[in-house]
Amino acid sequence: MKIIAIDSSGMTASVAITEDDITIAEYSVNYKKTHSQTLLPMLDEVSKMTELDLNTVDAIAIAKGPGSFTGLRIGSATAKGLGFTLDKPIIEVYTTDALAYNMYGTDRIVCPLMDARREQVYTGIYRFVRSGDGFDLETLLKPSALPVEEVVKKINELNEPVIYLGDGVPVYKDKLDALTKVDHVYAPSHRNRQSAASVGALALKLYKAGRYVSSDDHVPEYLRLSQAERERKEKEDT
Amino acid sequence: MKIIAIDSSGMTASVAITEDDITIAEYSVNYKKTHSQTLLPMLDEVSKMTELDLNTVDAIAIAKGPGSFTGLRIGSATAKGLGFTLDKPIIEVYTTDALAYNMYGTDRIVCPLMDARREQVYTGIYRFVRSGDGFDLETLLKPSALPVEEVVKKINELNEPVIYLGDGVPVYKDKLDALTKVDHVYAPSHRNRQSAASVGALALKLYKAGRYVSSDDHVPEYLRLSQAERERKEKEDT
Repeated sequence: MKIIAIDSSGMTASVAITEDDITIAEYSVNYKKTHSQTLLPMLDEVSKMTELDLNTVDAIAIAKGPGSFTGLRIGSATAKGLGFTLDKPIIEVYTTDALAYNMYGTDRIVCPLMDARREQVYTGIYRFVRSGDGFDLETLLKPSALPVEEVVKKINELNEPVIYLGDGVPVYKDKLDALTKVDHVYAPSHRNRQSAASVGALALKLYKAGRYVSSDDHVPEYLRLSQAERERKEKEDT
Repeated sequence: MKIIAIDSSGMTASVAITEDDITIAEYSVNYKKTHSQTLLPMLDEVSKMTELDLNTVDAIAIAKGPGSFTGLRIGSATAKGLGFTLDKPIIEVYTTDALAYNMYGTDRIVCPLMDARREQVYTGIYRFVRSGDGFDLETLLKPSALPVEEVVKKINELNEPVIYLGDGVPVYKDKLDALTKVDHVYAPSHRNRQSAASVGALALKLYKAGRYVSSDDHVPEYLRLSQAERERKEKEDT
């Protein structure tokens, strides 16, 4: 089974082609360009490099959120366009689930932290549970928008060693160090940002469990109101 | 510190730009094209995408071996060329070390297996040891060319849960399942092949420990004689 996977939920733009047990290609960029400049050229690049026949693709996997509103919209629009054109289903993967999946096989609890501005992080808490030939990802805290203090409180309550990752780490590292009462480590450079190969690997599991939608039904999951919506609501409420 | 990292030791061609705690870009392809067709175009692609000024690069990291003779030669020639032209040092990383580094943070012992043909694998055995903000990679068996039966014997002697990865897994999975007496799992698609981002992350640690060479001094490490050398030797011996 062949999947095109996309993650544009943060500053990282990442595309991958996953085929069963192999990542055929992955291309990830952490650079200040906007996803509208990078995502499709990157997909085009890996498709040409691997002589991909788009008709052989079985599904499109997308990091559906939480994350940057603009990033999610560009990623979802791209996934919907591909799904519609190729008449293939969309496999929606939570961004935080996919980030946690970067740390596949760790015994620690995994806590992705994405900077959500306004003193919040997009986060979740996860654990790998031994299953079959490998591990399943168990969700201890579902994808949420929270102040970092509340996340660390939950981590301390779980009272187990933890690994933090994501673009929220450099923003909140001092607080994490000061507040975390359990043994904590940080994912290094090759594991600490969004990776479409992780989205693709997790998507394959979801697909096998029947968890996919049509391109019509796919919508990003923002978890919060956008700035424009928030400001309108505040105006209406006053 | 900015590093260009290259791994062309197997069928995977992978290039990355690592800057301190971030992978600026990674591009990996697992496809039947030869590395002479892919490696430089991929490096050119990520350099352009991230507007890389080559003069800001501090070092070149290369998966020095073991691995495919032709792949290693192409990778080393590329690294030497870059190092010579830019007058920057080469950080040599064992391919098996970098593969093990894919599984950063696991409590299991990690056993990369690269198909070395002639009934052998290129392998090593590793463990992550808690240190500072993360983990150090400890070598239990240094990079070696061995029959898979001997590797599994060592794994069984260690008597700890293990994770296998690498292109040797699909070749020897039946044997691994039959012979391994400890709990064993296999790395999934997003972790089971060479990744230049892993090479870059590990290279940064080596560099800080003063472990780098000049481009003149860098040579690949094959561990075995090439087919041509072997055949000449056999001829001479008879």
